[in-house]
Parts: sequence; C-alpha cells; structure tokens
Amino acid sequence: MAVQVAVLGAGSWGTALANLLAENGQDVKIWEHNAERVAEINEQHTNKHYLPELKISPRLKATSELADALNGAQIVLFVVPTKAIREVAKQVEKVLRIQQARPVIVHAAKGLEQGTHLRISQILEEEIPAANRNGIVVLSGPSHAENVAQKDITALTVASHDVEQAEWVQNIFSNDYFRLYTNQDVIGVEMGAALKNVIALGVGAIHGLGYGDNTKAALMTRGLAEISRLGVAMGANPLTFIGLSGVGDLVVTCTSVNSRNWRAGNQLGQGAKLDDVLQNMGMVVEGVATAQSAHELADSMDIDMPITNAIYDVLYQGKDIKAAIAELMQRSNKPEFNFE
Amino acid sequence: MAVQVAVLGAGSWGTALANLLAENGQDVKIWEHNAERVAEINEQHTNKHYLPELKISPRLKATSELADALNGAQIVLFVVPTKAIREVAKQVEKVLRIQQARPVIVHAAKGLEQGTHLRISQILEEEIPAANRNGIVVLSGPSHAENVAQKDITALTVASHDVEQAEWVQNIFSNDYFRLYTNQDVIGVEMGAALKNVIALGVGAIHGLGYGDNTKAALMTRGLAEISRLGVAMGANPLTFIGLSGVGDLVVTCTSVNSRNWRAGNQLGQGAKLDDVLQNMGMVVEGVATAQSAHELADSMDIDMPITNAIYDVLYQGKDIKAAIAELMQRSNKPEFNFE
Repeated sequence: MAVQVAVLGAGSWGTALANLLAENGQDVKIWEHNAERVAEINEQHTNKHYLPELKISPRLKATSELADALNGAQIVLFVVPTKAIREVAKQVEKVLRIQQARPVIVHAAKGLEQGTHLRISQILEEEIPAANRNGIVVLSGPSHAENVAQKDITALTVASHDVEQAEWVQNIFSNDYFRLYTNQDVIGVEMGAALKNVIALGVGAIHGLGYGDNTKAALMTRGLAEISRLGVAMGANPLTFIGLSGVGDLVVTCTSVNSRNWRAGNQLGQGAKLDDVLQNMGMVVEGVATAQSAHELADSMDIDMPITNAIYDVLYQGKDIKAAIAELMQRSNKPEFNFE
Repeated sequence: MAVQVAVLGAGSWGTALANLLAENGQDVKIWEHNAERVAEINEQHTNKHYLPELKISPRLKATSELADALNGAQIVLFVVPTKAIREVAKQVEKVLRIQQARPVIVHAAKGLEQGTHLRISQILEEEIPAANRNGIVVLSGPSHAENVAQKDITALTVASHDVEQAEWVQNIFSNDYFRLYTNQDVIGVEMGAALKNVIALGVGAIHGLGYGDNTKAALMTRGLAEISRLGVAMGANPLTFIGLSGVGDLVVTCTSVNSRNWRAGNQLGQGAKLDDVLQNMGMVVEGVATAQSAHELADSMDIDMPITNAIYDVLYQGKDIKAAIAELMQRSNKPEFNFE
C-alpha cells in the first residue's frame, strides 16, 4: 500500500529523496516555486541544475501549488533551506487547517534559525500546531544527494520523541541501498547536523592553507568535542554525537569535495573574500549563518567553543585565519573531555 | 631541564616521535636492531626507508644496545608492532631490573595481542612489574608519522589511570604543532586505537569497489558504533569514542592514502589476494591480525559486531566482499544505539 508524501523543495536533497520515495513505490508530489523546474521534472524527468545525472522516476509528480502537493499527504517532508523553514511552515499550516489534515511532519534541513537560535523541529512545532499534525521526525546523517541519486549505500538517522513514528518513517524510506537507524534524541541529532557545517568550513579552510590529514582530523575531533559540549548543555545525549548525525555527517561534510561548506572554506583558506565565495557557490552555504548562531548561543550559555568562535571571528570580524589557528594552538593544556 | 627518553623502535612513528622529542630539547636515544639504520641515523641524520623526507635532529642518538638506550631513561616509549610488544617488554624488564630503574612507560602501539586479546598496556603490566616502572601512559590519536615529520598540526590523547603522569607526559611532548589532551580511560583509548584499523581495511575495500562518500561515512560510523559497543562491554567510557583516539584516529586512518590499513583494504577491494597485498605493503598491517582478535573477542563476549565479523569473513574465510556487503544491508531495521 503506497504512502502519500509531499516533498517541499526541489533542490538536490529534496529531489534525491523524492525520487527515492517514488522508486520505493510511494505516491510522491514535490512542491517547487519555479514553474520551469516543475515542468522539467514532469516532462523531462530531470532536474539538471541540481542533479544533472539523475533520471527521475516518472512516478514523481511536481507541482507549484502547495495545496495540490499537500492534498492527501500522510507525510510532509520539508527539504528547504533553514532560513525558509518558518515561512514555508506558515503556508503549510494554513493549507493543513483548511484541509483538516494531520500528517506526520518530517524534515531534512540542517541549521539553526538566525536570531532565535531555534532548531528546525522547534520552528515547525511553533508554526504547525499539534491539531494539524502528527509527530515531527528528523531525517539526518551523512548523505550527499549526488551519492543517493547514484544509489550508493547510505545510512541515516530518523529521530523522533515518538519511536513508533520514527519506525514508520524508517520503513517507508528504507531500501537495499538506503538504511535508516532510529534515535529518540531529537536535540542531539539536530545540533550535530547544524553545527558540523561550521566545522566543515574550518576543515576546508585549513585544506586551502595546505595543512594535512592529522590537522584535519584534529579539527574535526576537537570540533565534535565542542559541538557535543554545547549539545549536552542543551539536553542532548552525548552518545548521539558518535552516531550518523554526529560523526557520520561530520566526516562526509569535512572530507568530500561534494560538500558546499567544505568548498566554501577551501576558497577562504586560499585567500578569497567571503562575499565572493558565497556568490561563486550559487547555493546556500548553511555553515556561514550557523557559525553566527552557534557563536551567539555558546556565548549566551557560557559554553567554551574555541573552534566555532575562531571561525566566527574569521567570517564576521575579519580575523586572519593563520592568527586564529596560532591562538588555538597556544591555549593551555586540557583534558580531552569536560562536559561540566 | 631535559628529560631523558628511550624510544624503542625506529619505524616511521618511532622515528617521528623521537625526533620531535629531541627537537623539544629532550635527551633522546632511539633503540633499533638494524645496525645499518642505527649508523644512518647517527651519521646521516636520516631514516630514508621510513621517512624519506625527514632531516633528523643531530640531538637524536640511535643505538642497537637496549641497555645503552635505557640507561638513565625517565621515560621508556614503546613504538614497536603489537606482535613484538611482549618480547621487547621481557627484554626491557631484565635491563630495568639490573639498572634498578623505575621509568614511566609510554606506548604508542595500536593493536590487541593475538590469542590472548590483551591490550598493549596489559601486556606491559604483565611483563614489567611495578617495582621496575612508574605508571603506564598511552599515546594515541590521529597521527600519520609523515605529517608529524612535516610539523603539521597534530592533536593526540595521553591516557593514564594516573592523571599527574599523563599531564607530565603531555608537557614533555607538547609544542606549537603537537597538542595533547589527557584522558583517564585507558581501556577506551586502546580499544579505539586497535579496532579502527579493522574498519579502515573495510573502508579501503569499499573504495576499491567504487563506492562513494556516503557509504564510507556509513561504514565508519556504524563501525565506530560497534567498536564502542565492545569497548563499553570491556569497561570503557563511551565518550572516549567521540575523542581523538576514537573518531579522530578512525577519520585519519579511513580517509588518508597514507594509511597502510586503508591501502591494504583498497587493494583487496580491487580484487587482490590477501597474501599478495601483505607482501606488497612491506610494513605491518595491524588491522589484519586485529580483525581476528576482535572477532574472537566479540564472539566470546557475545557482542554484536556485524562489520568486524564481515571483514573477518572476507580476510580469513574467503568470503566474497560483495556478498558480505549485501548481507550487511539486509539486516533488520535497528535503533542507532544499543549498549545493552
């Protein structure tokens, strides 16, 4: 029995997930503003701007009408950039209210809201009252859209306070190349997903500066230590950071040339200006905004995040990267873990 | 005031550490069987077989006489392959007894003893009684010797039950490119260091088979989950596996072409036979022996380690790699963590 799914956002990750679900036999509609892209998906079965190699299943239908996408959907999957989540959620709420619908909400976005520092699921909870939804499930982990489109073996986390809903989503997405693991620590999963983009900017930058593998591993590991420290202070289980949405996503984002955040960092390390880098990328680089949110959050909670703060200083305060690295190395000797 | 250090083993890691300590101003003697290598280090200040690019400090002296290396040493640093640890420790114990010495023992080896499945520090404890040594300290983490020789920024863990001895060692090794973090979880540090080599063989193999970044991240993360599961059952703190000797070392071993275990796995993935691979490498590939130890240990303790077992089956039971991967993907859906 096919499950009806509305996928919101036809970027690379939205398109890859929508196509996977359609090929899994689900009834999928993907919602996208851009009328040309809608026509391209429906008529050419391609989305060349985002996934040039992908042949999209003819089962996947695109629409520019939100009410059309949502009509009858049992799952609404948000795959829009962090900064668009609240606005799209407001629109979705209006339609669900009219349709008197109560779907499960799933999101696959990675970031923190600027200003409020809210996690994605918190924004969704605020904007879509429980009367018009079932639980909220987070889909996260190491997953370049390009690799999923190529049916490369991929493992992800599905996190929800409600284990049964996480297991239901697990079954709907699973196939022989896409494996999901349930987790109940929504805070840890969302914090790991958001903050690893900041570390990826840093790893890209030290690559651009010519540092080697030891240095990258050190930055990733000590970056993960401070992500965990902030996450635990917010209520996360520290073990989540060993998992797919922690280590896993950090590794893939920090070691793959497919990662936008890594690429942006690499250009910065080679001496490019931030404005030019962002213009060159032509896609959202979530880590740049997240660096600011994480810096403010750590500051307000009095959590020690030396690497995130150094990256913030380089991005927003014009600090020299080499000076920032030297300062990190000159800190006093420390024990490896301190979650106090 | 210079500290006197005996470094046992002039392979790539022993040579890089001995040179670093000499450049830090310590009085260092490196012990090595091979008389030609001893002469090369003392006269040419090179060790071209292991670190062709390195100019060794003239402060570093090499000797083929163990008693000469150990005479007056405050620290004895073992950097020999796992399978040689017990035999070298027996020799060291005899000399220390005669010299009535009681140095701090540090080791930088990564593996489990075949047959007994003992960790390195356990072997050292067995062979060198407390009357002839101070504490035992483990030096571990993401550290290609080549990168340390190039003075690339590197961060490591120094682990000991005795915090003060770990801090003392931390100070002796630290400099502006080599940063150490103390940790009291000796079991977790040694288990992470040993078992990541097995996962690196697997990641190399799937690279050799043509899989992409998502698959590697999935294998590394799920590999770390089962390493943590075994480690915790043995008494480790699960948080250690987020650290430098866990995630950090896993990342560098699984993503760098400098890693022997990764290179060996890559050749297996491309279809080479194990015996030929080991002969080609010309250096010890610790992960091959560790795969057997970890498989036996997990079996005896009834711990679920599907990835390690699959790698064991490929290495020792002639199992087809693709069949092993397919079986891993066909397991029933799971929660992400289960430390029971």
